[in-house]
Amino acid sequence: MEAKPPIKVAALCGSLRKRSYNCGLLRSAIELSKESMEGVEIEYIDISPLPMLNTDLEVNGTFPTAVQAFRTKILEADSILFASPEYNYSVTAPLKNAIDWGSRPPNVWADKAAAVVTAAYDLSAGGAQYHLRQIGVYIDLHFINKPEIFVNAYQTPAKFDRDGNLIDEAVKEKLKELLLALQAFTLQLKAT
Amino acid sequence: MEAKPPIKVAALCGSLRKRSYNCGLLRSAIELSKESMEGVEIEYIDISPLPMLNTDLEVNGTFPTAVQAFRTKILEADSILFASPEYNYSVTAPLKNAIDWGSRPPNVWADKAAAVVTAAYDLSAGGAQYHLRQIGVYIDLHFINKPEIFVNAYQTPAKFDRDGNLIDEAVKEKLKELLLALQAFTLQLKAT
Amino acid sequence: MEAKPPIKVAALCGSLRKRSYNCGLLRSAIELSKESMEGVEIEYIDISPLPMLNTDLEVNGTFPTAVQAFRTKILEADSILFASPEYNYSVTAPLKNAIDWGSRPPNVWADKAAAVVTAAYDLSAGGAQYHLRQIGVYIDLHFINKPEIFVNAYQTPAKFDRDGNLIDEAVKEKLKELLLALQAFTLQLKAT
Amino acid sequence: MEAKPPIKVAALCGSLRKRSYNCGLLRSAIELSKESMEGVEIEYIDISPLPMLNTDLEVNGTFPTAVQAFRTKILEADSILFASPEYNYSVTAPLKNAIDWGSRPPNVWADKAAAVVTAAYDLSAGGAQYHLRQIGVYIDLHFINKPEIFVNAYQTPAKFDRDGNLIDEAVKEKLKELLLALQAFTLQLKAT
Repeated sequence: MEAKPPIKVAALCGSLRKRSYNCGLLRSAIELSKESMEGVEIEYIDISPLPMLNTDLEVNGTFPTAVQAFRTKILEADSILFASPEYNYSVTAPLKNAIDWGSRPPNVWADKAAAVVTAAYDLSAGGAQYHLRQIGVYIDLHFINKPEIFVNAYQTPAKFDRDGNLIDEAVKEKLKELLLALQAFTLQLKAT
Repeated sequence: MEAKPPIKVAALCGSLRKRSYNCGLLRSAIELSKESMEGVEIEYIDISPLPMLNTDLEVNGTFPTAVQAFRTKILEADSILFASPEYNYSVTAPLKNAIDWGSRPPNVWADKAAAVVTAAYDLSAGGAQYHLRQIGVYIDLHFINKPEIFVNAYQTPAKFDRDGNLIDEAVKEKLKELLLALQAFTLQLKAT
Repeated sequence: MEAKPPIKVAALCGSLRKRSYNCGLLRSAIELSKESMEGVEIEYIDISPLPMLNTDLEVNGTFPTAVQAFRTKILEADSILFASPEYNYSVTAPLKNAIDWGSRPPNVWADKAAAVVTAAYDLSAGGAQYHLRQIGVYIDLHFINKPEIFVNAYQTPAKFDRDGNLIDEAVKEKLKELLLALQAFTLQLKAT
Repeated sequence: MEAKPPIKVAALCGSLRKRSYNCGLLRSAIELSKESMEGVEIEYIDISPLPMLNTDLEVNGTFPTAVQAFRTKILEADSILFASPEYNYSVTAPLKNAIDWGSRPPNVWADKAAAVVTAAYDLSAGGAQYHLRQIGVYIDLHFINKPEIFVNAYQTPAKFDRDGNLIDEAVKEKLKELLLALQAFTLQLKAT
């Protein structure tokens, strides 16, 4: 009986806020993967050093240093975990910026599995995740369908502490379910 | 060396027109699969007998006969090939109707691979395919990302004959590429 | 001081179910307009007699009788009020069917104001309304932006009675706010 | 007979590239408005000085200087003209960034008319414009429906010169048509 190989997951947070709930979801996912899962290694990739996309910054086929470092990280990952806040019914500028730098040829996202989680104040939202999924068609990411996670950050009792750390056990359970689905899908995509 | 098992593909056309170009794309796909592919069996599923969705028609947990027959066909398939015209930037009513009947519990689409092709008059379109992909998240279909096929039915020389049969070799090549991608993805999703 | 001319609103329900909550929202809107508003006349337009869209049914430039009657009703209206359930993250087949028949040349929706309300079980949804708005770009409907109404049909206390009638005062207030916004927008679009 | 009052249009380009075709569309629109239109004053608003959105940068209710200046410009405009490139089926990061800064309370976009033009290499696209329109629902922009302008930057003869200036007369005609529609819609929205 062969052990499942560990998969490498790159985790990206679409908010630059220090106490972002969305980044808190990623910290919780990393913790869960270490404590109670096997075969899933999640690395948090900071997108804040990336300059605003302007392809004039590509000189002689070379990317700015921060962009190059980011692209290498994505390339090394088997799959991607997005924490995507929703600003004005769509993805945030920092997240779109990271996506666009990664998509510059050669596209480093290609053929990877992906999943997305959102903490938001507005329950009827969902635009950010579906815009992200449509973007995924072009950059060739394969998103898992289920579970879909939208955490209502408004409801009481509070699901996050003041530093943005997830403190809700039910959401943690859901997060773990999502990580397992991402792991399974990633392994399927690696099968030939 | 083991032969790849044949996959069963259910092909659905979103138009009820007799000479629909979109249905022509499916006829061509079926022909291609027979002539020059191995391991892909495509069956055309007629959606025209389905009544307009109204869940009041489900009596004592029983579906109308045509609905039951349709659901059984979908359930038996490994993957789905949609020919989705674009009416007013979205999918057609007959196609949405078939999708909605199939999604009634238990959802017969769940966890299948899928692909979509479109023949349209308006090149800047694309809404129908992205609406369909978003629907796919809910009904748990896994669409391949590439290739995306939008056939411009206006361009000359004509890509279809008067009966809606595809007569363009370049589009046929593209269609075959799509079927191979669908086959590969279907097999990956069946791997465990 | 001139009285505002009454506007004629065509109300369409995307569900064919007898006890549909969405149709209940329209009945409530009609009641509100009669009881406590001035200058808004809402007529419920039944879409159930429409055949499934198939342009082969247009013979010598003539529409089927039910289609012709429907198109005339829409043409006479100043604006449209949709009650759009969400099935599988998109609009329902009966509603899309009505829209597509209306869009056949000459497009009877053109340049009218519109608003949409939804009763749904899944709060994180919203696909149906945004698909409808995108369809509106093509058929040239001008949707009001605010308020957006998604009624959570699951929450307790119940917002609808067993026959699908709206019994929640807060939602009625919101509905009235939406009708006033639709009225104002309709009048602006009629200004020259 | 009263002259129509001039409307003030803020023009935003979603690309930071020096020779961007999309920015070229705006330069052409400005030229057209000066040469051959009455009552339309278009001002190009540079979005490149804006920092990447991070609400931690709002200190004591004060925005960074560049943000404040940008918000004032938008507030003074009657309507907005977006040149929205499409990167990976959605709007660009710089444009989303500008939109999100403008939407911080109090939302400076509210209740303005808007229009969007796109120069792109991929004709079957359109995602950027529809994502932008969906964003518009939230920030309360009223987009005109017609004409929709997607300029195919690949086709020969070239539609732009090497510096990104529009040199195609047919596209200029279309642009003018769009500006007239934006003007008319803006005036309607100002009517009471």
